[in-house]
Amino acid sequence: MKNILIIGAGKSSSALIKYLLDKSNEESLFLTIGDISTDNAKNLINNHKNAKAIVLDVFDKEQREENIKKSDLVISMLPARFHLDVAKDCITFGKHMVTASYISDEMKALDAEVKEKGLVFMNEIGLDPGIDHMSAMQVIDSIKDAGGKMLLFESFCGGIVAPESDNNLWNYKFTWNPRNVVLAGQGGAAMFIQEGTYKYIPYTKLFRRSEFITVHGHGKFEAIANRDSLKYRTVYGLEGIPTMYRGTIRKVGFSRAWNTFVQLGMTDDSYTIEESENMSYRDFVNLFLAYSPSDSVELKLRSYLKIDQDDVMWEKLVELDIFNPDKKIRLKNATPAQMLQSILEESWTLAEDDKDMIVMQHLFGYELEGKKYQIESSFVVLGENQTYTAMSKTVGLPVGIAAIKILKGEIKTPGVQIPISREVYKPILKELEEHGIVFSERKVPYLGYNSNRV
Amino acid sequence: MKNILIIGAGKSSSALIKYLLDKSNEESLFLTIGDISTDNAKNLINNHKNAKAIVLDVFDKEQREENIKKSDLVISMLPARFHLDVAKDCITFGKHMVTASYISDEMKALDAEVKEKGLVFMNEIGLDPGIDHMSAMQVIDSIKDAGGKMLLFESFCGGIVAPESDNNLWNYKFTWNPRNVVLAGQGGAAMFIQEGTYKYIPYTKLFRRSEFITVHGHGKFEAIANRDSLKYRTVYGLEGIPTMYRGTIRKVGFSRAWNTFVQLGMTDDSYTIEESENMSYRDFVNLFLAYSPSDSVELKLRSYLKIDQDDVMWEKLVELDIFNPDKKIRLKNATPAQMLQSILEESWTLAEDDKDMIVMQHLFGYELEGKKYQIESSFVVLGENQTYTAMSKTVGLPVGIAAIKILKGEIKTPGVQIPISREVYKPILKELEEHGIVFSERKVPYLGYNSNRV
Repeated sequence: MKNILIIGAGKSSSALIKYLLDKSNEESLFLTIGDISTDNAKNLINNHKNAKAIVLDVFDKEQREENIKKSDLVISMLPARFHLDVAKDCITFGKHMVTASYISDEMKALDAEVKEKGLVFMNEIGLDPGIDHMSAMQVIDSIKDAGGKMLLFESFCGGIVAPESDNNLWNYKFTWNPRNVVLAGQGGAAMFIQEGTYKYIPYTKLFRRSEFITVHGHGKFEAIANRDSLKYRTVYGLEGIPTMYRGTIRKVGFSRAWNTFVQLGMTDDSYTIEESENMSYRDFVNLFLAYSPSDSVELKLRSYLKIDQDDVMWEKLVELDIFNPDKKIRLKNATPAQMLQSILEESWTLAEDDKDMIVMQHLFGYELEGKKYQIESSFVVLGENQTYTAMSKTVGLPVGIAAIKILKGEIKTPGVQIPISREVYKPILKELEEHGIVFSERKVPYLGYNSNRV
Repeated sequence: MKNILIIGAGKSSSALIKYLLDKSNEESLFLTIGDISTDNAKNLINNHKNAKAIVLDVFDKEQREENIKKSDLVISMLPARFHLDVAKDCITFGKHMVTASYISDEMKALDAEVKEKGLVFMNEIGLDPGIDHMSAMQVIDSIKDAGGKMLLFESFCGGIVAPESDNNLWNYKFTWNPRNVVLAGQGGAAMFIQEGTYKYIPYTKLFRRSEFITVHGHGKFEAIANRDSLKYRTVYGLEGIPTMYRGTIRKVGFSRAWNTFVQLGMTDDSYTIEESENMSYRDFVNLFLAYSPSDSVELKLRSYLKIDQDDVMWEKLVELDIFNPDKKIRLKNATPAQMLQSILEESWTLAEDDKDMIVMQHLFGYELEGKKYQIESSFVVLGENQTYTAMSKTVGLPVGIAAIKILKGEIKTPGVQIPISREVYKPILKELEEHGIVFSERKVPYLGYNSNRV
């Protein structure tokens, strides 16, 4: 029996736990699932004999050490900032570790110790980061193997609502941590490079600089530039590439409407609002508009942001009921972002049978023997319901697959790493295909950013 | 002989040093002026017998302690973050201290020790903060003394270029630290309260939410809301006041044009630009615009920010030569804000004979015996030239006056403080009048924010 300790039994862990339980007999696995409360873990285990739920406070050193000691591999599904103590214990007790989080500098700094102990610390092995790395590297490596030179890499990913559950004007529901959606794009300019020209977009313009993309068979979407695309030049071994762009996918029209909140200042999480607990939705909106003894909040907003009478953006705002003077937010000392999140959750929470959808698309431009080519690679996957979402599946499966392959010694190169080596991405992408996560690849004319050859 | 140690002999110290030297015989003062280099200090001393310039590195503990020990009072004209070591030494050796900087939490925390030693640590005794506090409190106290109830307090201050030296389309030149001008408004939403309604303006909208004010005899100006006006309710003893607003004065039209830089992302100081040292002014602008293989930087900018062909805003940009492809910025690893500053300094630096101008205006609304009143109080002062600016005068004089009055025991209530008590503001405002800093007060109809009684 191999023991896997999973820390964190939130929304994101459902598909992971299901996958590992399904494999538990075949692979002789026993899962210990620790969280501050065992409620959710017990639901997900559903009396399966190869798992137990325990109360685990990651800040309780004794409890943490005791459980890590008993395991062969630890999966941390907590937010990234909680990984470090777990990682240090894993080194101390010689255990492998897997996370779906962005690798932190502190985590990176453990590389030498991890290597010395012959351990595998696999990070960024969820969806994005995760499947994006693996699927991109597979194509990039094959282009390079054939002698090609990369000219362009663009990568887009988004978690949205599936067409059959898409019943609001925003064409959006929360399929992941709502807080991250509200704060998306903050904390620095978006940076990328197009045809050798550096581009920087400040937060204030980010949602007005989205670009349209077409995913074959699924139509048009829009993409909002991610924070730092430049650093992926080094990560993917693409130094000197003229075009490198990563973005987040939404349905067309989302960004232009979301920009309303950005311009008003409603996504700010850096200060708290006085007397927030007594404010109605309407009061909240009025905080960000000029004072008037007589004009309505509606007209002040229209005038301020120049929203025409027939602009559907307005209907999107009305749909959220943000002008309601009777509905209270009831959060004390709340930031604007927290208040906005609370308003949005009322409208954008997945219903029990709602399905979500993950869309990922890569574009690879390259030159081979003097000719230019472009490959378009994409996948779309739908969730089952509110619990077994496409998001949970695409994050959880690669984590689970990696965990088993590390335990079996199929992934064995030690160190603190992300899944960009063939040893890692090949077997994992192969098994993901069995679960319906299949990239469809098309050769398309090379476009670059000068398709009209002007 | 009383010894005053002045730390920092930059631009802002010229009028302060001149004032103290002029008083040095009468008041038996000797000035020791310390800076990393003695060049500027020597120029300002101009061989006056009652002063000497020394090399002083504020981080050199021994040097710092030695000079503080020999003094009776220390004036720190360094940026606020450098005050704390000096302050601690002043406590150790029992010396008074004066700064024109905003009081920091660390400085506040020294209050008990300072009081115990019977010392006066006077902060925020420049122009803004400084003269604004004193002139506001004088009127507020007199209204309260008469039994009035404050309804409204608005305060505006700005350092701009004097009409006779105003020869650019922006009607602006740097009369103070250019970096602070470029970064102005960042780091948090502007907060104030109008007629009991809280208002919050995010940075992205700050320069489109300026309000017009009229300064009697000087015409119309515009005011941009300061960061946190709310906290001044407590500072000025105006808890519960329905309207509290503080703002920065510029000539009309400045903010709308400055907003161009904000929207483009040019004022961002949080990241560095790759290859900045090779970039032309034009390259810099293009960083913030979408890629195009053919369209001009000019048209991309016009289209992006919707600047009409006949909008004078465009001429303001052209005047700064920002579309020049040959002029290089030559700053390595520079932030957008640093690059913008370098471009602006070329156009906005005061010429030797240029005069600057300080404008300050307060509005006080109050109720007395059932009737509402409003007082408008303002002063305008011009500088002499590039060195003896109105800015340097209005910052340096109150610092110098306070220093002498502390040494003479006329200001004696110990503690870490700002100039809001009668003991402090009365004699200082009186002496400022002798130097031409005279507030003119007018009774005007009470307006509030509902002047039309709709």
